[in-house]
Amino acid sequence: MIEIAELANVSIATVSRILNQNGRYSKETEKKVMDIVEKYDYQINQSAKSLRTKRTNTIGIVIPDITNEFFAKIVREIEDYIVPKGYTVFVCDSNESEKMEEMHILSLVGKSVDGIVYISTKKEVHKIYDSFNIPAVYIDRRPHNAGTLIISDNEMGGYLATMHLIEKGCKKIVMLRDEKLFSTVKSRYAGYLNAHQMLSIPVDNNLCIDVKVGYAYAKDAVTDLIYKKICFDGIFANNDIMAIGAIQALKENKIKVGKDIKVVGFDNVSLTAFSYPSITTISQDAKKLAQRSVDELLKLIKHQSKGGDVIVIPVELIERESTQIN
Amino acid sequence: MIEIAELANVSIATVSRILNQNGRYSKETEKKVMDIVEKYDYQINQSAKSLRTKRTNTIGIVIPDITNEFFAKIVREIEDYIVPKGYTVFVCDSNESEKMEEMHILSLVGKSVDGIVYISTKKEVHKIYDSFNIPAVYIDRRPHNAGTLIISDNEMGGYLATMHLIEKGCKKIVMLRDEKLFSTVKSRYAGYLNAHQMLSIPVDNNLCIDVKVGYAYAKDAVTDLIYKKICFDGIFANNDIMAIGAIQALKENKIKVGKDIKVVGFDNVSLTAFSYPSITTISQDAKKLAQRSVDELLKLIKHQSKGGDVIVIPVELIERESTQIN
Repeated sequence: MIEIAELANVSIATVSRILNQNGRYSKETEKKVMDIVEKYDYQINQSAKSLRTKRTNTIGIVIPDITNEFFAKIVREIEDYIVPKGYTVFVCDSNESEKMEEMHILSLVGKSVDGIVYISTKKEVHKIYDSFNIPAVYIDRRPHNAGTLIISDNEMGGYLATMHLIEKGCKKIVMLRDEKLFSTVKSRYAGYLNAHQMLSIPVDNNLCIDVKVGYAYAKDAVTDLIYKKICFDGIFANNDIMAIGAIQALKENKIKVGKDIKVVGFDNVSLTAFSYPSITTISQDAKKLAQRSVDELLKLIKHQSKGGDVIVIPVELIERESTQIN
Repeated sequence: MIEIAELANVSIATVSRILNQNGRYSKETEKKVMDIVEKYDYQINQSAKSLRTKRTNTIGIVIPDITNEFFAKIVREIEDYIVPKGYTVFVCDSNESEKMEEMHILSLVGKSVDGIVYISTKKEVHKIYDSFNIPAVYIDRRPHNAGTLIISDNEMGGYLATMHLIEKGCKKIVMLRDEKLFSTVKSRYAGYLNAHQMLSIPVDNNLCIDVKVGYAYAKDAVTDLIYKKICFDGIFANNDIMAIGAIQALKENKIKVGKDIKVVGFDNVSLTAFSYPSITTISQDAKKLAQRSVDELLKLIKHQSKGGDVIVIPVELIERESTQIN
């Protein structure tokens, strides 16, 4: 009340009368005080309230790379779905750093969020629910100790991508993998192997290249293959950004993408539609991934579920110029 | 202590002995308890501490569109700069909604962040410092009541873009503006007018088109100009995403981008380098915008500044295919 009185430039007694709706005060003063109370009250109560009730109507989302459109889209879809239900969303970007991710989880716990949607860059996570009594739902990647998990059908994605390249005539398909070998990458690789096996096409282990995630590393890796005169006619890149790096390397070496070497990416970020050539890719359904994760998180928050389910969302091949013979 | 004892599955007396380093307990039990204390202590203290000291070593960033790479880049640059200084960052995406933005500000205040970096979608903001006693620094857009502001030299950007189009032979330049007419857009428009004036080229007001921000709206607006047979030979788009929409409309109508109609965007997102044709654009220095905003915010947090400065960061024209005659 002291602070409200100061901010409103009225006496503490006046604030008290207005708050208790008791005694004399003008409509004007009441409005002035209540405007401040409205904002100020919120501020004070949040910290005090979180000690009492542990419900804050906020959730945290931890993502590994805010500049990767696929993760940004998931955030946007989560917001579109959960904000109308009365929640606020805090986004934490770990920049693929385990240490940063750790800090973010502790901060979110410290801020008493009601739940966490978690895309981890780690091989193993704390049991967030057990340790902090905060429900968490995992998307995309499956670190050890993860609870409820919402993932795309990555193995099917890897299978569809590879099958498509083989159907288009490729026999020696490079797979560019994120060297961190997340569960997603392993599943996509399993799909790559399945497609080969299905058609009895031998897999050349030398064509499976592990690189740091990102445009520049993928470009360097493919440039390296070209310089070493290693023979290949197709590339399945672990994500679209790596596909774009690979294509850039091919273009700089005057190799015709689509005709000479065909490329498939993964994620269906908007770059794949607008780049030249446009890029065939596996589309992940960001909206469904987001909505199912919110559904599961809210069930956990409301104690309507014990968690631990794995929910697999279908993927789709989007055919574009990078696998068409021009 | 009750909760720690429960979590560690030991007696409260044991927890007490370990915490006070007094009496008998095994090394094993000590580790088990201290592991929990480490995490748990953090959780408890955060809320209590924020009531006491009001310092949380967290800052909030409010951005209008997490799926726009320019804003994502600013977030990343802020993190890269402030995290090593011991801060955690919460990102809030308003999705260009004023209501959402309002909620985010209140949530950040409620979570007692030490400061806010604020890119607003509103014409007028609360005086955050006055109302909530939380330092705030604004980037990019300048709503009424904004304090310290870090902006690109938008007027110079508009001037450079327009001058470049004129030098390349354009006489009838469409300007695609975000209909919300943020301060940034107005400044870019002022630069567009200056360039015309400088060379005594008349401005056709019908060529200044206000559209909702986004790919689809820009594409529709340019398609509309083509159908109405309105004469133009250049487009200066308010941001790169609108430039990409404009180019798509031109391509679908068999108009040669670069040769027949030249296009300049704004922001230098990575799409502009990879799209076909690649897009001439004005590069904003996301790193400098981010670092200067952090510097100013930390000064405000540490009471080393009264704030209110406007800091203008230079921009640069990046020439690509969309303004080259092939």
